[in-house]
Amino acid sequence: MERKRTVTFQPEGLRAEIGEDESVLTASRRCGVQIESLCNGRGRCGKCLIRIEGGKATDPTRFETLALSEREIGSGIRLACQTYPISDLVVHVLAAPSATGSKILTWGLELQIEIDPYIKTVSIELNKPTLKDQRSDAERLRSALKTSSIDMHLLRHIPRLLREKDWKITATIYGREIIDVSAEGLGEAYGAAVDVGTTTIVVYLIDLASGKVLAVESDYNAQIPYGEDVISRITYASREKDGLAVLQRLVIGTINKLLDEVSKRAKIEKERIYEVVCSGNTIMMSILLGIDPSFIATAPYVPPDTSSIVVKAREIGVDINSGGYLRTIPSISGYVGADVVSDILVSGMHKREAISLLIDIGTNGEVVLGNRSRMFSASCAAGPALEGAEIKFGMRGMAGAIEKVAIDPESFEVFYKTIGGVRARGICGSGLVDVLASMAIAGIIDQTGKMKLNQQQSQGNAQEFVLVKANETEIGKDITITQRDIRNLQLAKAAIFTGCSLLMKKMRIKPKDIANVYIAGAFGNYIDPMSAMVVGMFPDVPMERIKTIGNGAGFGARLALLSRRKSKEAQDIASKIKYLELSGEEDFQKEFLKALNIPHAERSLFPTATRIIESKGKERPIMQ
Amino acid sequence: MERKRTVTFQPEGLRAEIGEDESVLTASRRCGVQIESLCNGRGRCGKCLIRIEGGKATDPTRFETLALSEREIGSGIRLACQTYPISDLVVHVLAAPSATGSKILTWGLELQIEIDPYIKTVSIELNKPTLKDQRSDAERLRSALKTSSIDMHLLRHIPRLLREKDWKITATIYGREIIDVSAEGLGEAYGAAVDVGTTTIVVYLIDLASGKVLAVESDYNAQIPYGEDVISRITYASREKDGLAVLQRLVIGTINKLLDEVSKRAKIEKERIYEVVCSGNTIMMSILLGIDPSFIATAPYVPPDTSSIVVKAREIGVDINSGGYLRTIPSISGYVGADVVSDILVSGMHKREAISLLIDIGTNGEVVLGNRSRMFSASCAAGPALEGAEIKFGMRGMAGAIEKVAIDPESFEVFYKTIGGVRARGICGSGLVDVLASMAIAGIIDQTGKMKLNQQQSQGNAQEFVLVKANETEIGKDITITQRDIRNLQLAKAAIFTGCSLLMKKMRIKPKDIANVYIAGAFGNYIDPMSAMVVGMFPDVPMERIKTIGNGAGFGARLALLSRRKSKEAQDIASKIKYLELSGEEDFQKEFLKALNIPHAERSLFPTATRIIESKGKERPIMQ
Ligand code: FES
Ligand code: FES
Repeated sequence: MERKRTVTFQPEGLRAEIGEDESVLTASRRCGVQIESLCNGRGRCGKCLIRIEGGKATDPTRFETLALSEREIGSGIRLACQTYPISDLVVHVLAAPSATGSKILTWGLELQIEIDPYIKTVSIELNKPTLKDQRSDAERLRSALKTSSIDMHLLRHIPRLLREKDWKITATIYGREIIDVSAEGLGEAYGAAVDVGTTTIVVYLIDLASGKVLAVESDYNAQIPYGEDVISRITYASREKDGLAVLQRLVIGTINKLLDEVSKRAKIEKERIYEVVCSGNTIMMSILLGIDPSFIATAPYVPPDTSSIVVKAREIGVDINSGGYLRTIPSISGYVGADVVSDILVSGMHKREAISLLIDIGTNGEVVLGNRSRMFSASCAAGPALEGAEIKFGMRGMAGAIEKVAIDPESFEVFYKTIGGVRARGICGSGLVDVLASMAIAGIIDQTGKMKLNQQQSQGNAQEFVLVKANETEIGKDITITQRDIRNLQLAKAAIFTGCSLLMKKMRIKPKDIANVYIAGAFGNYIDPMSAMVVGMFPDVPMERIKTIGNGAGFGARLALLSRRKSKEAQDIASKIKYLELSGEEDFQKEFLKALNIPHAERSLFPTATRIIESKGKERPIMQ
Repeated sequence: MERKRTVTFQPEGLRAEIGEDESVLTASRRCGVQIESLCNGRGRCGKCLIRIEGGKATDPTRFETLALSEREIGSGIRLACQTYPISDLVVHVLAAPSATGSKILTWGLELQIEIDPYIKTVSIELNKPTLKDQRSDAERLRSALKTSSIDMHLLRHIPRLLREKDWKITATIYGREIIDVSAEGLGEAYGAAVDVGTTTIVVYLIDLASGKVLAVESDYNAQIPYGEDVISRITYASREKDGLAVLQRLVIGTINKLLDEVSKRAKIEKERIYEVVCSGNTIMMSILLGIDPSFIATAPYVPPDTSSIVVKAREIGVDINSGGYLRTIPSISGYVGADVVSDILVSGMHKREAISLLIDIGTNGEVVLGNRSRMFSASCAAGPALEGAEIKFGMRGMAGAIEKVAIDPESFEVFYKTIGGVRARGICGSGLVDVLASMAIAGIIDQTGKMKLNQQQSQGNAQEFVLVKANETEIGKDITITQRDIRNLQLAKAAIFTGCSLLMKKMRIKPKDIANVYIAGAFGNYIDPMSAMVVGMFPDVPMERIKTIGNGAGFGARLALLSRRKSKEAQDIASKIKYLELSGEEDFQKEFLKALNIPHAERSLFPTATRIIESKGKERPIMQ
């Protein structure tokens, strides 16, 4: 008769029963606990880290002594796939997949805000007019609600509305303006937070009373056929006849479609959406409002307007309540947009005395450094490599993209995971950062990025490192990494680090002074922070200081939608933060060249990354 | 050899030479001095009053002893057509045509206002952006001009505009908003004051720098086919599908056409018109803005909104500069509109301690009584008689309308003047008031309004008083006044007086306390104040206290356009003034019945009018 053992997973406290010949990894899957695994339990990827907190388990296997340091094993750290129970066990999951990690930050923040949107609803019964009280309908309404104005389109129907509802009404108010009147008791008011990405647009439908997200929908920005990146959009907008109007119509079309979808999903009427708050980069915000973004593209890179703009949604054709508003989060500069202001707002770094570094990673990397007294921002032209472009087998983060990679430093065996778990079609950004880090740790590239391949690793004479053999892929050919790919990835990570580095110099801040590193951006969301640190994408700080922000743009828009105070904070952030034009800094070239190395030409600046690389991955920090 | 004599006319000081056999009236025509004359110099209409201030003239004729009192003759008062020079003469013209009189009031006020419009232009050279100064274009512009916002449509083009003008620009600012940017030196800014009448729309094009009227154009309100008066317009707007939108489009069409015409006439670009200020009755203001006016028509007669409304002109399709504004003068109640607020603004009664009475005469008479501390207003349903409707030969004030009438109290001969001097086609409002007054003075009607005609005066059995014989008319039949016409005129004048009377009662004010009576309204402009007083249309006060305001609606709009202070005064007027609903007053019926008499059932209240009637016109006051 087989003995059953109970494994309890901390911190969630979930439990599973397994036999003595089943691993802790198997137990975790049985009760739905997420433990990272790339090699599917073969002990080779070194990802499935746990710490034994109670009970007895089998001794470490050969794979564990290869992947873990003695100190780690001494403190009870193990690979879940190599650990079998001898008694009941209590284990602590150490490295949860980063997506979950980011969600934790976002959910935590949600609880902190006081819900106080610009949109309010008030139910009231008005005194009926008489021959002795002939005040105008508008005046009667305004004075009863202590407001100063009525939306022009609403005003046109006010006389009939008041009488139809027999003077018992619920009014929707924006600031000091009445924007809707409905029957008494119909006090539901919704808003939408919109992340207007260059590639993807995400719409969150929010209940303005509870702050809850009722539905989320996303889709590609319909502008994509007119250019993949912001610069090609600007070119289209400024060179083609009516180009700007065309692009504006497309983005608004996508937003309207998503508003339709979230309303249907949540079973609410679109007329009950009263405000849309949008965040995104400066070019997206400009095009959304139909404002000419041309001059962002050429020196001195001047944006048309960076302030928070409030317009009647109907003025630009956004289809919500006729009196409703669309508002943009303010921006900082042409290349540090509302999305970064949103990131900062979500991070809370603008309110703390401690120094934080925020990195929003995308085609352009944006970097912000500082605390509540002063902050500097910069934009780094990382190029499209991190989004999979200009990489031989690079692709966007879609099904079939390799998103996680580990390389066994002894056998050089490659372990990976694709989005959707399907056969591999290419590699996306987070996979590429893993590749670069793993190749450095495995010694396949040296610190200058030069590949040193043996015959077995490479594909013919091409000097390409084979990640996945043709017969395992969907595309029927080897998925490889070329020397040129490595070079492009080095350029991208160096650009981002140079931004961090010049800001630190400007503000006389050392890596050890940085209390928090926030990783943001749709792509930053998926990146493995340790891989990013190993390649030297940002300063070498203790791992526990690194935090992933979820969709900062969307979440920041949501904060601004729900809280007038957060909206004001966003304005303060945008107006107080200084922008440093990196191309105007004399050290730029020198710093950039040093940052091309992996992790960096001055290795003393990167003690952790250097230790990880030199220990072939054994001496990595573990987030407890 | 004929002796030539020089006649000098005061107050203008103009001179003419005449022979001894030529009258002073002839002299006046020779040098362009306007002296009223209805009988064309036959001594019968009693209108051509002068006072001899120096020199010797022929003795009074038989006609003069009939038309003038002994006291008048004793003080040198004569009829110009009956007076021939014996020496050189200096004469003073006593009764100038009322149109001239009203112009004098308007021109006098023009000089008093300080020009300080909401629209300003500022010329400035901006610092060009550099890598060290990458502020957004909008921020650069706003901070240089110390403004807080930029018109949304303008903002879209700001980046290109600033660079095209090489950062040397002239900005047009409305309050704290930049609404236009043009090349340096192009600082012209124009505005339009619009009198939106139920029948006629008048547009004044104004230079906002000098305050000068550059052009004036008027046309019928294109809504007329949908109803002659406001009530039928309301009916159309509320009963017909899209009725309100149709009427709005029509009135805006007329305004746009007139804006076109004044711009062409003054040779300016329409894009340089930045603000349109509109005045008119509450229904016209509502329809202009597309606001449902339905409930003004039924008790308790509640207007949709009476405040001053400011909208982007483009929002309602008014075709001026894309960033420009349309603003309405505020109203007081459903039937006391922006036109009356304009009248008050022009009269200045809201700033003086002395009590004034203002009467705006049209289909509805509006009456305002008070001083700078308190004012009451009322609306009196005068009916359309004073605009020529419901009168057998009534017509609007167009060419061929009899506009002035005098009846010789001895011979009952009728003297009249038509608009344009052409053959008579009917009688308009001012002529009708003259008819009623003249018939009372000549004793053709008694104080109850009953006609006592002999065979010679009347037309067959019909008991109609013949004003003009068929062979003198354009229409080929007798133009007559019927008993029913008299009755309708009595109803109209009684309605207006009842308004005055109930306001006086409410405020405990006696006629002698009234320092000024202002006659306003497109029709009030043409009425003969003495005729109106004789029939008892307003309280019996010394004639010199009666003043005609020109186009109060148009002129008030012009004041508000040119002066922020006057705009604020208009708001104060509208908010401070009380509205008295006459139909809610218990004395209404009693007062109205008494006011039907000519001048009034209580003759002691009308000493001047009574004296004029009883003296058959001899004992009339003369405005010196
Ligand atoms: S799953 Fe345990 S090492 Fe890969
Ligand atoms: S013109 Fe002199 S009385 Fe008529």
